Amino acid sequence: MSLPNTIGSSFAFTCFGESHGRCVGVVIDGCPTGLEISDQDIQTKLDLRKPGQSIVTTQRAEQDRVEILSGVFNGRTTGAPICLVIWNSDVRSSDYEKFLNTPRPGHADYPAIVKYSRMNDYRGGGRFSGRITAGFVMAGAVAEKLLVSTLSLKIFAYTVELGGLKTDPSKFSFEEIIRSRYSNEVRCPDSAVAQRMKDLIVEERGKGDSLGGVVECTVLGLPVGLGEPVFSSIESEISKAIFSIPAVKGIEFGSGFAGARLKGSENNDAYSQSENGQIVTKTNNSGGILGGLSNGMPLVFRTAFKPASSIAKSQESVDLSTGKDTSLVVPGRHDPTVVPRAVPVIEAMASCVVADLAIRGGFVPKVLKRN
Amino acid sequence: MSLPNTIGSSFAFTCFGESHGRCVGVVIDGCPTGLEISDQDIQTKLDLRKPGQSIVTTQRAEQDRVEILSGVFNGRTTGAPICLVIWNSDVRSSDYEKFLNTPRPGHADYPAIVKYSRMNDYRGGGRFSGRITAGFVMAGAVAEKLLVSTLSLKIFAYTVELGGLKTDPSKFSFEEIIRSRYSNEVRCPDSAVAQRMKDLIVEERGKGDSLGGVVECTVLGLPVGLGEPVFSSIESEISKAIFSIPAVKGIEFGSGFAGARLKGSENNDAYSQSENGQIVTKTNNSGGILGGLSNGMPLVFRTAFKPASSIAKSQESVDLSTGKDTSLVVPGRHDPTVVPRAVPVIEAMASCVVADLAIRGGFVPKVLKRN
Amino acid sequence: MSLPNTIGSSFAFTCFGESHGRCVGVVIDGCPTGLEISDQDIQTKLDLRKPGQSIVTTQRAEQDRVEILSGVFNGRTTGAPICLVIWNSDVRSSDYEKFLNTPRPGHADYPAIVKYSRMNDYRGGGRFSGRITAGFVMAGAVAEKLLVSTLSLKIFAYTVELGGLKTDPSKFSFEEIIRSRYSNEVRCPDSAVAQRMKDLIVEERGKGDSLGGVVECTVLGLPVGLGEPVFSSIESEISKAIFSIPAVKGIEFGSGFAGARLKGSENNDAYSQSENGQIVTKTNNSGGILGGLSNGMPLVFRTAFKPASSIAKSQESVDLSTGKDTSLVVPGRHDPTVVPRAVPVIEAMASCVVADLAIRGGFVPKVLKRN
Amino acid sequence: MSLPNTIGSSFAFTCFGESHGRCVGVVIDGCPTGLEISDQDIQTKLDLRKPGQSIVTTQRAEQDRVEILSGVFNGRTTGAPICLVIWNSDVRSSDYEKFLNTPRPGHADYPAIVKYSRMNDYRGGGRFSGRITAGFVMAGAVAEKLLVSTLSLKIFAYTVELGGLKTDPSKFSFEEIIRSRYSNEVRCPDSAVAQRMKDLIVEERGKGDSLGGVVECTVLGLPVGLGEPVFSSIESEISKAIFSIPAVKGIEFGSGFAGARLKGSENNDAYSQSENGQIVTKTNNSGGILGGLSNGMPLVFRTAFKPASSIAKSQESVDLSTGKDTSLVVPGRHDPTVVPRAVPVIEAMASCVVADLAIRGGFVPKVLKRN
Repeated sequence: MSLPNTIGSSFAFTCFGESHGRCVGVVIDGCPTGLEISDQDIQTKLDLRKPGQSIVTTQRAEQDRVEILSGVFNGRTTGAPICLVIWNSDVRSSDYEKFLNTPRPGHADYPAIVKYSRMNDYRGGGRFSGRITAGFVMAGAVAEKLLVSTLSLKIFAYTVELGGLKTDPSKFSFEEIIRSRYSNEVRCPDSAVAQRMKDLIVEERGKGDSLGGVVECTVLGLPVGLGEPVFSSIESEISKAIFSIPAVKGIEFGSGFAGARLKGSENNDAYSQSENGQIVTKTNNSGGILGGLSNGMPLVFRTAFKPASSIAKSQESVDLSTGKDTSLVVPGRHDPTVVPRAVPVIEAMASCVVADLAIRGGFVPKVLKRN
Repeated sequence: MSLPNTIGSSFAFTCFGESHGRCVGVVIDGCPTGLEISDQDIQTKLDLRKPGQSIVTTQRAEQDRVEILSGVFNGRTTGAPICLVIWNSDVRSSDYEKFLNTPRPGHADYPAIVKYSRMNDYRGGGRFSGRITAGFVMAGAVAEKLLVSTLSLKIFAYTVELGGLKTDPSKFSFEEIIRSRYSNEVRCPDSAVAQRMKDLIVEERGKGDSLGGVVECTVLGLPVGLGEPVFSSIESEISKAIFSIPAVKGIEFGSGFAGARLKGSENNDAYSQSENGQIVTKTNNSGGILGGLSNGMPLVFRTAFKPASSIAKSQESVDLSTGKDTSLVVPGRHDPTVVPRAVPVIEAMASCVVADLAIRGGFVPKVLKRN
Repeated sequence: MSLPNTIGSSFAFTCFGESHGRCVGVVIDGCPTGLEISDQDIQTKLDLRKPGQSIVTTQRAEQDRVEILSGVFNGRTTGAPICLVIWNSDVRSSDYEKFLNTPRPGHADYPAIVKYSRMNDYRGGGRFSGRITAGFVMAGAVAEKLLVSTLSLKIFAYTVELGGLKTDPSKFSFEEIIRSRYSNEVRCPDSAVAQRMKDLIVEERGKGDSLGGVVECTVLGLPVGLGEPVFSSIESEISKAIFSIPAVKGIEFGSGFAGARLKGSENNDAYSQSENGQIVTKTNNSGGILGGLSNGMPLVFRTAFKPASSIAKSQESVDLSTGKDTSLVVPGRHDPTVVPRAVPVIEAMASCVVADLAIRGGFVPKVLKRN
Repeated sequence: MSLPNTIGSSFAFTCFGESHGRCVGVVIDGCPTGLEISDQDIQTKLDLRKPGQSIVTTQRAEQDRVEILSGVFNGRTTGAPICLVIWNSDVRSSDYEKFLNTPRPGHADYPAIVKYSRMNDYRGGGRFSGRITAGFVMAGAVAEKLLVSTLSLKIFAYTVELGGLKTDPSKFSFEEIIRSRYSNEVRCPDSAVAQRMKDLIVEERGKGDSLGGVVECTVLGLPVGLGEPVFSSIESEISKAIFSIPAVKGIEFGSGFAGARLKGSENNDAYSQSENGQIVTKTNNSGGILGGLSNGMPLVFRTAFKPASSIAKSQESVDLSTGKDTSLVVPGRHDPTVVPRAVPVIEAMASCVVADLAIRGGFVPKVLKRN
């Protein structure tokens, strides 16, 4: 219960690696035996998160080619721990030493300096870099494959707000969202809004500034009763996972903060029977979760990302060696917003948590049958 | 990592008991040896959460007297597990059997029926009842005493929104909030708004309806560097704990969802040196957390509570035995809003998480010196 | 992974209580829903461990009546945590204060004084007392009921050596051992040897001395493949559990230490097919475990108990206040050997570990079907 | 609490890799920040375990060169997870497929086939190979460096019995044992006995047979009070770790099984004050552990290894495809005894457990001071 770099209990993973170290990797433990998995299954997901993809992301050029180091044999998982790594290559570390004296606003520099007595690897943000989420994506690719293979789940995230520009995803069917979410650089299912979001990013990047936004994630097909009570509620487990992604500052399920303004008679989701005999709710203010358990409706949650901390504008800081106030400009190649690249990361963490709960609840067996 | 009724790793607790069973209790493991703790220390906190306190809460009449069953000797913690219980008395269980056939909207009835094949204790909601948070409050009382004794922390929550009525807590000093938050039934530091909130609750209760709201929590005095990386970030650990409280549907830290609409240059908190030589930030959009670690500024988070699910109005449900749609009225004694009684629960869970991280980080020793 | 009073991950329990405190108890988490369990199921096991049963045990008179405080409803487990307690009554604490200054040889007094700065509950040994194993027996009763109900396992321990007197259990069939092991005070299936063991105990008690011994435990009916790899091998999990029993100083599986003197050609167990088509081994030097997993043969392990530390003879110690050597006589009512009362404790811990591994491996479902 | 490939809670490691896969590795989490560690520190330990070292080991030729992939920066640990790997090279996998049909006696083949439905990586034994202990040794090298640097501990194991040939280690001083234990191929401090052990190994290898033995391990310098109560006693934690080493079938602490034949008056260790004012015991039958905690005396435990399962002699097995009895000869390059190469593995696991308990108990800080 206490390993800060490990998450999950039945489908779990441990992550390692630094932004400018040798590599970034994960070790997955608990993946059922017999899952067919290939490099390409994982690479496809990594490519969605890869830096340098488009005008709205950092220009750091990494290939991010996955290598499977263990746990897969004859194209299937063996039940043994699965180690996956990508190797770092395009590293420019010279800029970072000065932040040991002048911490960047909005970054982990200052508390990390204090916590680790300046002995942490500060290059590129080290362990506090968003680059570690490449590991999350690799683990998530395995989790998602498992969930699709065994429970036919659909897990998909998409940008619903960026720099204050919003779309209403209820305008689109789930199928439309699934199909279109990766069709533009900002990963917004609403192509008109997406274009405005993109324009805004380019504009603010030009000014040396950055933007935040909100990503929604939906999971379709959850079995009723998935989730565990109390401290392992779906909300507890997902929020813990999501807040491990750098720049996340809020999460809400279903009607969330807006629901806090509704009355019970408005927010409660009435039950009815669907045409195929399923128990459904007429609305989904609960986001598919009651008492921490799935009620079989779509699991829906939204994640708030702060604007990226690294900006080209001059900022106020303190020179720790003298205690004097000073100013700072953060050089380097940065994302003007983390939102588009965070979309596959959210999908990955949602997949890992759901896979964990699915195995814990007995919805997925420990050994998969061969086809 | 997988026990759904246990939270924490260094200061941990396991909870047990049901709404209409014999008792509700917790076993705390990891509390440092030598903490002075009395029944009264715990009772004071329990009394803040007790049902039947005021017009805005349920009229169930429980004494909720704590009993310390283990782990305390000569008025001090011994290092052994601390078992704390309250006994249930005012139980009226006859009403609940019908919900096994006709699940209440907004409650855990339906997914619990499926998950446990109707064998869970459904009386009063069983394990899904808000009553289990009495256990959280007992554990939190010990955690808070520990944090006050060793680190002089201040942990306080307060209602900032109820039924759409809001206050802006920045109008008040921390001292004012600490002093006044329990001075009215809704636990809002703004007495004018509190009165309107109370009136609204009474009005909606009269209509058989319920309300939601938002509780803010602040922790003062955190040492810089408290928190662990990645999956044990302060946000990850607090959110996991907070979402275990029934009716919680959202959480945000610092500027949260609003911050997602700011630019980096607006949301980044500039550093400066305070008069006493401390490194501080001029704003606190981060909510005191950078990279998952405390930067020494006040930890601030807000929790969204949905309106209480139990309402007197007729609601639509399904008769599970026939599959036919039906309607349902939920009888019994219920809270028209959970928000006021949730305030001490939020404080308790915040205290438990911070105590856990404080011990993990080495900020609190395993054995306290005798005075 | 770090709670010292909790064991298990899928079928887990947390223990609390002290020898001379209010009670001794456990909270079981993870027991499948739907197991029929009664007070009497647990009491039957507790009675086998109860003090004051016979001439070979302590004369402390405790009723040790179990109370089920949570997790059982309508005679079945609900999936919620199961809290079980017994209340202490026959407590004589006056004698123990002096051991704070003059630690008893063979007891935990001295390291506990140092570890807890004299703030632990020292009365009756506090948490270091064998009395906490009453909690293990309560948890084990539930685990054993689960394993018998679902997998028809047989779990039985028995004394094979006491004070140097040995029996060879291979002289008896499993059925004979199961039937006869509780038929005499020393829990030895060999009635002739049992009588000599008993005589020896009485003799040494008369001299103010104590005895140790060896308990063997057998589990029949394990499914092939039960157990998890590496750190959760059957041997790892059982040994961790068994060494939590006070006075245990050794454990061996199958041929154990004697097997270390054999050649591979002698110690390897040859496979063959039994008449009913099962794969069996002709010998069982592995104790039913290969690679940490069950091979379907009987699981066999032996546990070495040191002679009870509390003896009436004068012993050498140190006066911690002066640093001078001194002598000490331990008064009170003590077991002249812990072996007979440890037999049901071994069965209990074996049951808990096997239940945990059975659930982890998917051999037992999370929800049992109603009959 | 449930990850089978992870051990420890404060100093923990997760292992991965297979005998004939790409690599064997570990990820250490929780190592304090600021420990100076080099490739060479780890390589020195790996070399002690390396195959092909001498006439008494397998002739598989692996370089076993460690690579530090993460967690070390500027020659010091950073507080981030430390990934260490060795790459496999001298792999001959063709022989193993037949064991899927005809399981080798004494190996994990049969239960693994059943557990994983023949989908585990069987080459070279896969995860059940002793080769995974190379990972243990890498983790142990870091743990030992930590314990030496901070607490000046001495951790050393040595062969005390092999093929029935014994030495009495009490004939040698600790310094002699430390100095001489790696001076011969069998790692026995008694050079005369070592020669006979070696001769016996060579003789039995010639006959196609194998031998077992007993390794003793001593840890000097433990602080009084190290260890945690109940399920995290020193014995519980060490035994769990030691039984994860393939071929281990028994463990005993202090007087162990022999102590079970002593009387309390003989086995209790009398206290006295040493010349330098320390509280010591005149004997050490407890193996330095009372109530699961260190009493400051040398921690002593012995581990029984069965004879290596892979022998050249013909053995009886079953053809799983036909169910008929058959015979089997295991080809390949095998250790005629695992004992000599297990000595550094025992040291490694002892180091990891003690490091974990030292951090949990607050005996080692989270951040080490720079020299």
